[in-house]
Amino acid sequence: MDTIRAEIISTGAEILHGLYPDTNAREISRRMKDLGYSIVHHTVVGDEKEGLHETITRSIQRSSIVIMTGGLGPTEDDLNRSVAAEVWGSPLEIDPKAEEMIRRHFSIRNIPMPEGNLVQARIPGGAIPLYNDYGTAPGFLLHDKAKKRVLIAMPGPPREWRPMFEGPVRTFLKERFPSGRILKTLTLRTINVPESELNERLRSLFNAMEGVSLGFLAKPGKVDIRITAAGTDRTDTEQLLSDARERILSRIDPGWIYSEEEGIPIEEAVADLLRSTGRTVSLAESCTGGLITKRLTDIPGSSVYLRESIVTYSNEAKRKYLGVRQETLDTFGAVSGETASEMALGMRHASGADFSMGITGIAGPSGASPEKPVGLVYFGLSCEGGAFTWQRRFTGGRNLIRERSADFALDMLRRFLLGEKANAET
Amino acid sequence: MDTIRAEIISTGAEILHGLYPDTNAREISRRMKDLGYSIVHHTVVGDEKEGLHETITRSIQRSSIVIMTGGLGPTEDDLNRSVAAEVWGSPLEIDPKAEEMIRRHFSIRNIPMPEGNLVQARIPGGAIPLYNDYGTAPGFLLHDKAKKRVLIAMPGPPREWRPMFEGPVRTFLKERFPSGRILKTLTLRTINVPESELNERLRSLFNAMEGVSLGFLAKPGKVDIRITAAGTDRTDTEQLLSDARERILSRIDPGWIYSEEEGIPIEEAVADLLRSTGRTVSLAESCTGGLITKRLTDIPGSSVYLRESIVTYSNEAKRKYLGVRQETLDTFGAVSGETASEMALGMRHASGADFSMGITGIAGPSGASPEKPVGLVYFGLSCEGGAFTWQRRFTGGRNLIRERSADFALDMLRRFLLGEKANAET
Repeated sequence: MDTIRAEIISTGAEILHGLYPDTNAREISRRMKDLGYSIVHHTVVGDEKEGLHETITRSIQRSSIVIMTGGLGPTEDDLNRSVAAEVWGSPLEIDPKAEEMIRRHFSIRNIPMPEGNLVQARIPGGAIPLYNDYGTAPGFLLHDKAKKRVLIAMPGPPREWRPMFEGPVRTFLKERFPSGRILKTLTLRTINVPESELNERLRSLFNAMEGVSLGFLAKPGKVDIRITAAGTDRTDTEQLLSDARERILSRIDPGWIYSEEEGIPIEEAVADLLRSTGRTVSLAESCTGGLITKRLTDIPGSSVYLRESIVTYSNEAKRKYLGVRQETLDTFGAVSGETASEMALGMRHASGADFSMGITGIAGPSGASPEKPVGLVYFGLSCEGGAFTWQRRFTGGRNLIRERSADFALDMLRRFLLGEKANAET
Repeated sequence: MDTIRAEIISTGAEILHGLYPDTNAREISRRMKDLGYSIVHHTVVGDEKEGLHETITRSIQRSSIVIMTGGLGPTEDDLNRSVAAEVWGSPLEIDPKAEEMIRRHFSIRNIPMPEGNLVQARIPGGAIPLYNDYGTAPGFLLHDKAKKRVLIAMPGPPREWRPMFEGPVRTFLKERFPSGRILKTLTLRTINVPESELNERLRSLFNAMEGVSLGFLAKPGKVDIRITAAGTDRTDTEQLLSDARERILSRIDPGWIYSEEEGIPIEEAVADLLRSTGRTVSLAESCTGGLITKRLTDIPGSSVYLRESIVTYSNEAKRKYLGVRQETLDTFGAVSGETASEMALGMRHASGADFSMGITGIAGPSGASPEKPVGLVYFGLSCEGGAFTWQRRFTGGRNLIRERSADFALDMLRRFLLGEKANAET
């Protein structure tokens, strides 16, 4: 089956000046890919009329679906409306409903409408208007049934174009440009598992499954396993995806996967487990300086499982709040497994939480010694089941070392909670 | 003077699939803009040969400088090398030094070199090679002196292209494509100053300064004032910029500006003031859950001024660690100016820090009541000079409310430290 080609044109001087990356193109691409289209170009244009004219002309020649964002404002710089009309050969006409919506937009706010704003009510003749509930500029959709081409213009702000895309645009595309291609993706997310280990275990699957492609997306300390299944039938494609997932999980420890959803951070996985097991947690943070507590409290409702945490940068604070012994600090140092362990225990006693962790290390760039280099971090965990410590050496700058330390601590906590959950269920 | 037109072509299926936005284009645009060029297009292409051929052909027709990134890997998908050679009419040839560098890259790592990798040593005949110290693919630069055109191909990873751009590419461009245009920009960064207030005070300056343009870049709670001066002479342009800055500062409270550098967050401004005044700080955080402490300890060397902080989500923790009175909690509630004030005072007593702040509020989405809506946050500050409280109502989701609360707290701290500094200097 032929794939349907699509491209995206973003208008924005700010993007060309390097103030922002083109995030609209990114977001629209994901949605278009899920609809089964093949995105062949992104183009960013500024406020040059000829450049825009040429770009639109070429885009509609080579692709069936062209989506534009931006350039629909009321000023002269906003060219998308008039240039699209010109390229399509359909002069602009006032859309009465759009005019009414613009007038209402101003009258509700009790602001006199600048007459220039009415230009926004003009759309190319024969175009389908895409009304805007969150701004004054309507978008529009130009459909050439004979040539099987569509040019869709939407405003630039995501809160304005998202509802247009999710409403009339998606409906139109599914109906008029069915890709016949179903794409389903799933992401298995891991932390603290080396990519080489995953590669070793999954390598032989990489080209072994018809219609399924696998890929790793690796960031420091984290590897996402992306599974994409392609087919023509929804049920078959879902089956392909689910079979692929099973085969992968049979080759690795399923506990390595902290989430199967993109955009779910590890702290959310931990929060879910804390909620479902009814357990509480507290942190005694040194080198992470509140980062782990911050991440756990990013999640709404965190007050149920996290009632207190202490950031103890100084030795004095470690003694005062956590009861870390001077002898321990003198003998092993503030950055040691012994101190991490006493921090965790002290925090558990102070807070009465079920799980407490103590984190102490050298985030750098200063504070290192030959025996204790930058990136060396100790983790202590205290719970009813006992005391546990880990030592890790992370590379990278201060921020990365802190983030990886937080990831590591949260993942250890997750694995303990998973054990709790398994015990509770058996 | 004519501006020199430039454009950027990025190769990347991942970008077209919406996995990442095109951050290379963003970063290169900023650098090109600083060199005085006018960036007219960004294009993202995938692994289609014809599409790439057409894009390069059109780009070098309409712009003097075309910069490409990506597509220089050793696989068949990596088309930039061969298509650039084809468009330019200069067949690929082995560059002996590049070959040697690739061979060394593998021999240092004790890995046998796959023969396919040698394709990376080929560059178009007559091109200037751009050697790569951080990867195997060299870039190259094709210069058509007669037509005053240059096509520059660099690898995709920033750590590989950045040194190429900052070294040979920048030197080449400044020498062969002098823009004659000097652009200087300055950003005055504010927090907690309404954009309408800034607009009111600065409006009349907007079109009043020849060669200077002003703009606001507003994010929730933060407004950057961007000043851009354009001229043909470095000294004159710097003078223009400095005059514009003076005129702006004469119309606003200079204390509103927490930084004149882009990329400097408020916590770094606070850290600088803490260091220069020799003061220490501690935080008692409730709704911000460690975020302020985390941000302050993002800065290297923070152990000097921040020794401890406590996250007290529960009432019990507020009493236990901070000595907040049960009566205060009963009478005014945990989210109140009185509680924030007692948190700050208790934290200062516990820590012995010069400045302590207590932050308590409703980050949402739950926990609100008609009298205490989501976004209501109280701030207490305790120092030798006394006790201060503020109340704010922020809009937005949980994360935004927490970030704005942290921004507000840090800015209040900054303004107090500024007073300390002024006192110390007089």
